[in-house]
Amino acid sequence: MKDLIVQKYGGTSVGSVERIKMVAQRIVHGVDNGKKMIVVVSAMGKRTDELVSMAQAINESPPSRELDVLMATGEQESIALLAMAIQAIGYTVISLTGAQCGIRTSDVHRKARIEGIDTERLERELRAHQVVIVAGFQGIDENDEVTTLGRGGSDTSAVALAAAMRAERCEIYTDVDGVYNADPRVVPGARKIDQISYAEVLEMADLGAGVLHTRSVELAEKYKLPLVVRSSFNENRGTIIKEDVNQMEKVLVRGIALDENIAKISILEVPDKPGIAFRLFTSLAVANIHVDMIVQNVNRTAVNDISFTVNVDELQDAVEVSQKFAFEVGAQKVEFDQGVAKLSVVGTGVVANAEIASKFFESLYELGINILTISTSEIKLSCLIDKDRAKEAMIHIHKKFEM
Amino acid sequence: MKDLIVQKYGGTSVGSVERIKMVAQRIVHGVDNGKKMIVVVSAMGKRTDELVSMAQAINESPPSRELDVLMATGEQESIALLAMAIQAIGYTVISLTGAQCGIRTSDVHRKARIEGIDTERLERELRAHQVVIVAGFQGIDENDEVTTLGRGGSDTSAVALAAAMRAERCEIYTDVDGVYNADPRVVPGARKIDQISYAEVLEMADLGAGVLHTRSVELAEKYKLPLVVRSSFNENRGTIIKEDVNQMEKVLVRGIALDENIAKISILEVPDKPGIAFRLFTSLAVANIHVDMIVQNVNRTAVNDISFTVNVDELQDAVEVSQKFAFEVGAQKVEFDQGVAKLSVVGTGVVANAEIASKFFESLYELGINILTISTSEIKLSCLIDKDRAKEAMIHIHKKFEM
Repeated sequence: MKDLIVQKYGGTSVGSVERIKMVAQRIVHGVDNGKKMIVVVSAMGKRTDELVSMAQAINESPPSRELDVLMATGEQESIALLAMAIQAIGYTVISLTGAQCGIRTSDVHRKARIEGIDTERLERELRAHQVVIVAGFQGIDENDEVTTLGRGGSDTSAVALAAAMRAERCEIYTDVDGVYNADPRVVPGARKIDQISYAEVLEMADLGAGVLHTRSVELAEKYKLPLVVRSSFNENRGTIIKEDVNQMEKVLVRGIALDENIAKISILEVPDKPGIAFRLFTSLAVANIHVDMIVQNVNRTAVNDISFTVNVDELQDAVEVSQKFAFEVGAQKVEFDQGVAKLSVVGTGVVANAEIASKFFESLYELGINILTISTSEIKLSCLIDKDRAKEAMIHIHKKFEM
Repeated sequence: MKDLIVQKYGGTSVGSVERIKMVAQRIVHGVDNGKKMIVVVSAMGKRTDELVSMAQAINESPPSRELDVLMATGEQESIALLAMAIQAIGYTVISLTGAQCGIRTSDVHRKARIEGIDTERLERELRAHQVVIVAGFQGIDENDEVTTLGRGGSDTSAVALAAAMRAERCEIYTDVDGVYNADPRVVPGARKIDQISYAEVLEMADLGAGVLHTRSVELAEKYKLPLVVRSSFNENRGTIIKEDVNQMEKVLVRGIALDENIAKISILEVPDKPGIAFRLFTSLAVANIHVDMIVQNVNRTAVNDISFTVNVDELQDAVEVSQKFAFEVGAQKVEFDQGVAKLSVVGTGVVANAEIASKFFESLYELGINILTISTSEIKLSCLIDKDRAKEAMIHIHKKFEM
């Protein structure tokens, strides 16, 4: 749709009655500039956490289906309030829940994936209203069940809507100024990046206070949709994420990323049979567990050790799957370690450039930090290190690369 | 459906995590006794009030559609939490929103009426689960818009579901022990009534702390569905409301009702033309305003004064409609008075029995209280009096009738 902008406001941006009123003002600027607006919102501030803690006070492991019914109320609350705020300043507006907006998902509660968007109602409402407010993070499956999209869900909702409606761009409003070349909470000299490619930002998903989630960037890349990340608290320009980024200077290292939210699982003395690793990682995939760095230590005996990292949120499930696997194949035992962190340098050509890898390893050596695991992708070089020393390492490497 | 019980729990009954756990225990007693259970719940405690006050902080007169989207989150929250509590103690359960439950309503936001219930999903879930938890107070209109049912909405949801599913009975759980022969908060000697007919309880809708709303009793009467009103805080038997009530003794006066939540509107010097009152009351009906006591003072001149009472919640709307009417027909002015209350004696034959009316008027005379308006129905005699003296009058009359 021509002149259509999709905006997304996170929980802190709509955290209070006052903030909601301010966001309303920001949204109608778009209307004043002749734009059609779709606005995706998260639940207010800590509302989702409040709901989850009530659920846990009632049931230690609440059923996922009911958790989704519960959590979806958070966004439904904020869309109604934001619509009221926009109506109060004289613009025509309507709110839509995930179901009303036609966001169809898979039937995996708490981790649903968007399968498609029936845009008919959305198009009708956009013709009738200047602004359409949509509940992020939620959808509906083929049985009319309420689903939620898991981590980064509202960003994914926004990007999917922007793609489905062929919006000019998708603007993600948050509490930071954009994507930084290192986490500004950790590295004092961290700088905001003005433009960055999808691929680079994907590898730096944890920069800038975890401002963007992988899923939404992948989706934006697939549809070549320009993404803008900026603060809802000021008028700074933010970071533009798009396909081709003009680089006046050849910058090799775009940023340094630190992920402290991971854990390492090791399965010791796994019998060395063909297909055995495949069997483990298939079980983990079926359980919807995202596995990151994988290391298989081949011993001289007929047994291997298999290690991998997961997000700490998925540690409990991953350990359960691993223990079941270990029991079935006759492995010795399963160990896990939450005291690890993943430190990465990101940028086009970092892996091809031996100098960068050597500088990276040298920095860790200078600090006497042991490297537990190394992994590489086309544009990223990552080391698993001791979590206690990760921030110190990050600051040192940022300096070393003179970013 | 055979062995089906519908229960409804109000906001105070599910007002906290602890209360939700207690209600869960009460519900599963039904399952243990071989019953299928449909349980309708209201929003937790003061949640609806919190939501409304947030809305009003954002928009002085928030659009009704968005208010419905907002308010519906309250019940959605409590159904999910209650379902989690029941699952935690080992029973199979599922929650359904009004939309999921197939509660189809008219499209009048904030005051929707139930037009029908598509029971297909409900039946399927009852076959698969021991307990089905349903969000009260809400439904969905033909355009998939969220609607709410207005005052007494959750009771109405429960009775409508019980009627549609041909339940054995509908049990309304609240914070009082049942229907009283006078408001126990006002009259110290008020007694709980064990059995009462639909017609009588309809006239006493305000007894027992406003425990039942007219709409739900009318609906129960239409389908001859036995209603039980009892406390969720103890095991007392409550009040049974049904078609025929065995009366061992001939009790004429069943109860005394006081409604302080009303206001009187007077339109002065309305030109005396045929159809003019019809025109006023049609305008009020179109605006969904329920009009109660009507008095038309015919003067000797060609103008009349028309007075009527409305619920205070509807006063602002009613005054607006009246002023528009007064302007159009050339009446002199519109006045309103919130300082009035309606005191009634209810019971089969009260109007036919001259002694009761005389005792009622005598009581007011003894206290020197002026009667502003009198109205009668087959089983009720009501006087509009000064609100400041209404409680005193109620206590005096309760004594006088030796109830």
